[in-house]
Amino acid sequence: MQQQKMLVNAQRLQETLEKFASFGRTPNNGVTRLSLSQEDLTAREYLETCCKEIGMEVKYDDMANMYATMPGKEGKPPVVMGSHLDSVKKGGRFDGVLGVAAALEVARTIHDNRIKLEIPFTIVNFTNEEGARFEPAMMCSGVISGKFDKQTVLQSRDETGMTFGEALSASGYAGSVENRLKKAAAFLEMHIEQGPVLESEDKQIGIVEGVVGMVNYEIEVTGESNHAGTTPMGMRRDALFVACDIIRDVREQLSMLDPELVYTMGRMNVYPNIHTVIPNKVVFTLEARHKDPQVVSQVVSTIRTLPQEMGGCTIASKKLWSRDTVAFDQGIVSRLEKSAQSLGISAKRMYSGAGHDAQFIASYLPTAMIFVPSAGGKSHCEEELTSYEDCARGANVALDTVLSLLTGQ
Amino acid sequence: MQQQKMLVNAQRLQETLEKFASFGRTPNNGVTRLSLSQEDLTAREYLETCCKEIGMEVKYDDMANMYATMPGKEGKPPVVMGSHLDSVKKGGRFDGVLGVAAALEVARTIHDNRIKLEIPFTIVNFTNEEGARFEPAMMCSGVISGKFDKQTVLQSRDETGMTFGEALSASGYAGSVENRLKKAAAFLEMHIEQGPVLESEDKQIGIVEGVVGMVNYEIEVTGESNHAGTTPMGMRRDALFVACDIIRDVREQLSMLDPELVYTMGRMNVYPNIHTVIPNKVVFTLEARHKDPQVVSQVVSTIRTLPQEMGGCTIASKKLWSRDTVAFDQGIVSRLEKSAQSLGISAKRMYSGAGHDAQFIASYLPTAMIFVPSAGGKSHCEEELTSYEDCARGANVALDTVLSLLTGQ
Repeated sequence: MQQQKMLVNAQRLQETLEKFASFGRTPNNGVTRLSLSQEDLTAREYLETCCKEIGMEVKYDDMANMYATMPGKEGKPPVVMGSHLDSVKKGGRFDGVLGVAAALEVARTIHDNRIKLEIPFTIVNFTNEEGARFEPAMMCSGVISGKFDKQTVLQSRDETGMTFGEALSASGYAGSVENRLKKAAAFLEMHIEQGPVLESEDKQIGIVEGVVGMVNYEIEVTGESNHAGTTPMGMRRDALFVACDIIRDVREQLSMLDPELVYTMGRMNVYPNIHTVIPNKVVFTLEARHKDPQVVSQVVSTIRTLPQEMGGCTIASKKLWSRDTVAFDQGIVSRLEKSAQSLGISAKRMYSGAGHDAQFIASYLPTAMIFVPSAGGKSHCEEELTSYEDCARGANVALDTVLSLLTGQ
Repeated sequence: MQQQKMLVNAQRLQETLEKFASFGRTPNNGVTRLSLSQEDLTAREYLETCCKEIGMEVKYDDMANMYATMPGKEGKPPVVMGSHLDSVKKGGRFDGVLGVAAALEVARTIHDNRIKLEIPFTIVNFTNEEGARFEPAMMCSGVISGKFDKQTVLQSRDETGMTFGEALSASGYAGSVENRLKKAAAFLEMHIEQGPVLESEDKQIGIVEGVVGMVNYEIEVTGESNHAGTTPMGMRRDALFVACDIIRDVREQLSMLDPELVYTMGRMNVYPNIHTVIPNKVVFTLEARHKDPQVVSQVVSTIRTLPQEMGGCTIASKKLWSRDTVAFDQGIVSRLEKSAQSLGISAKRMYSGAGHDAQFIASYLPTAMIFVPSAGGKSHCEEELTSYEDCARGANVALDTVLSLLTGQ
C-alpha cells in the first residue's frame, strides 16, 4: 500500500495569505507594500512572530534580508525557501508574499508532523525585490550574490529623496553581514507565473528551469519639426512616421525568429508632441527575451543592422542593459517534477520571463522555482489572482521536494 | 515713359523690425512676447507712438485690438492692413510683427509722399493671435467676427491661473466695443509663409487665395497591459503595435489622395509607457489640411472606416475640431498679383496651411494675404528668418495694392 503523502494545511495557508493581504491593502483589494515602508515592516514583524511560534531562529543580514531557521540535527547547510514581502504600488496579494507564506506553511507542516530534521530548513524574505521604491529590482539578493555594489545601492533614493541606506537604518532590521545566505543545500522560490501560459495550457504548476536572458535597447529617431499645415509631405522629415516604419520592420524580422521570443516596445515618447507640429524626435525602447542566447543575439543583430538613415531621419540605438539566461539546477528541477507527479498535479517545465531573486541566488547555490498560475496572466496590479487551490498545490509540491532534500531521499 | 513706382523705405522697415525684436528678445535672438505680457504692452506702446508721430488716430476696441487710422478726405470705410504683435514662447522675430511693421511702413511711405487719401488707411494689431498664453489662437479677431463667444474667451486662463479678462483689464488697453473693425474697403495681412514652398520654388512672394480647411481627430487604441517578459506574442493585445499598423494603413490611404494634402500625427501618448509593460493604450492625433473640402471629406471617410477592432485591440476615433476652407477676395488677390508683376517681383498664388486672423476677417470683409518666404520653412522658433530684402518686397507689393485701393485705381 502506498504511503499517504504529507500535505500542507490549505486552509491555514489561505488565512496566512489573507493576513498578509491586510498589510497595505488598497481599496480595490490589492496591496501597496513598498520595501521598508511601515506596511512592509508590519508584515516582517508578523512573519517573525509566526516563525518564532514554531521555534525558528530569526536573523537578519546587513541588507535586512530575513532568515528564519528550523535547526537540523547537524550543522549542515540548510535547505532554503522563500521570496519577498514587498510589492509594487497598487500591486497584488500574491506576488512575492506567496513564496514566503508557502515557505512558512512548509515549516509549519514540518512542525505539525514533528519531523526531526537532519538538515536545517530556512525561510528567507529578501529585502526590496520589486525595486518599486528604491531601484534596482532584486536589490538585496543582488548584493549578497555580488551582482550589485552595496555602497551604490545604499545611495538609491525614493521619490521623497530618502536613500535606501537611510530607510535601512530607520527600519531597525539591518543585521550583520555574517548572516548573509552563503552555503545552502538548495534554494527554492515559489512564485506566481505573472504570465498566461499555465492557465491557457491548463497546467497546475510550472517547474522553472531558468530565467530567460534579455536585452533592452533604446532607439532614437531624429527628424525635423515643422508646421503641420504649411510643410508639403515630400519636404518632411517626420520622426514618428519613420519610427512606425522601423517598428513594423523590426516586428517582421523578429517574428521570423523563434516563436518563444517575446519583444516589446513598452515606452515611446514623441517630441514636441503637439498636434500641429511634425514630430522631430521619437524615442522608444525595444526589449526582447529568450532562453537561448543565440536567439537574443539575433535580436541584437537586427537592432544593430537598422538603417542609420530613413525618410530623412537619422536612427541611433543604444543598449540600456541586458542580462544573460540563468539555468537552474537540473537536480532540483527533476525532483520538483517527481513531486508534482507523485501528487497527481499537472506540471509544465518552463522558463521564467520575469526576473526573480532566485536568478541571482542561482549563481552560487543549487536553485529552482515553482510557478503557480496567474489568472489572465495579470500581475503587478490589484487584479492579480491565483486560486487558493493552486497556491496549496504549489506549496504541496514545495513541501514534497523540501522534505526529500531535507532527508536526502 | 513709365511712371516711377513709389517704394517703401527698406532701411526704415528693417530698423522697425529690429526695434520690435528687442521687445522680449531671447538669448538666441528669438522673441517671447506673449499676449498682454509686459513685452507685448511695451511693443504696443511703441507702435502707438510711431503711429501718432505721423498723425494717425489710435483707438482700441473692447478686446484691445488696436486701430491706428490715417484719415481720408471723406468718411468712407478704410483700407485696413495689419496682423499681430504677440508671439509664442521662444518664437521668431517675423511672425505677426512683420505684418504690423509693414503696415506701419506703408503708412509712413504715404506720409512721406504727402499723399492726400480719399479713403482712410488703418493699421490693425489684433490681440492674442497665437493663443500661446490664452487659448484659443486668433482669439480677438475671432470675437469681433463672431466666431468666438466673448464671455467664454474672457475666462480662458494662462499657466498662472490668470484669466484673459483679468489680463485685459490690467493692460489698460481694453477700449470700446464701438471701435471694433466693422466696415472696410479691404483687409490685407502680410505674413511670413511659415512653410518651405516659396523658398524651394524660388518665388519672392506668395499671393494667398485662402486658408485651407482642416480636420483634427483623436484616435484611441485600447489593448491590454501585461508583463513584457511572461506574455507570449500570440496572447498579446499590444496597443502600440496596432497603433503603428493603423498609422501605416492611414498614411498609405491618404498618400493616394491629392498631392497637396498634408497630414500629421503630431501628438502620441503611450500608456503606461514602461519599458517592461505591454502598452494597453495609445492615443494619437491625426490632422489633415487641404483647400478642397472634398479631399478633406475623403480624409474623414478614411478615419471613419477604420476597423473597430484589430490585433485584439479596439479602435475609437473622435473629431476634436475642424475648420472649413476660407476663400479670400479674388479682386484683391488679382490686384496683388498685378502689383507684384508691376514691381518685377516673382509671385506664386497659394493657399495658407496655417491659420491667420485674416481668415476670420474674411467672413465679413474683402480680404487677402501676402506671404514672404520663410528660410527653411521654419516658424514658431528662434531660428525663424526672412531676409530684410524679402520683407521690403512684400511691403512694396502691399504698398502698391493699398495705394490702388485707396485711390480706387
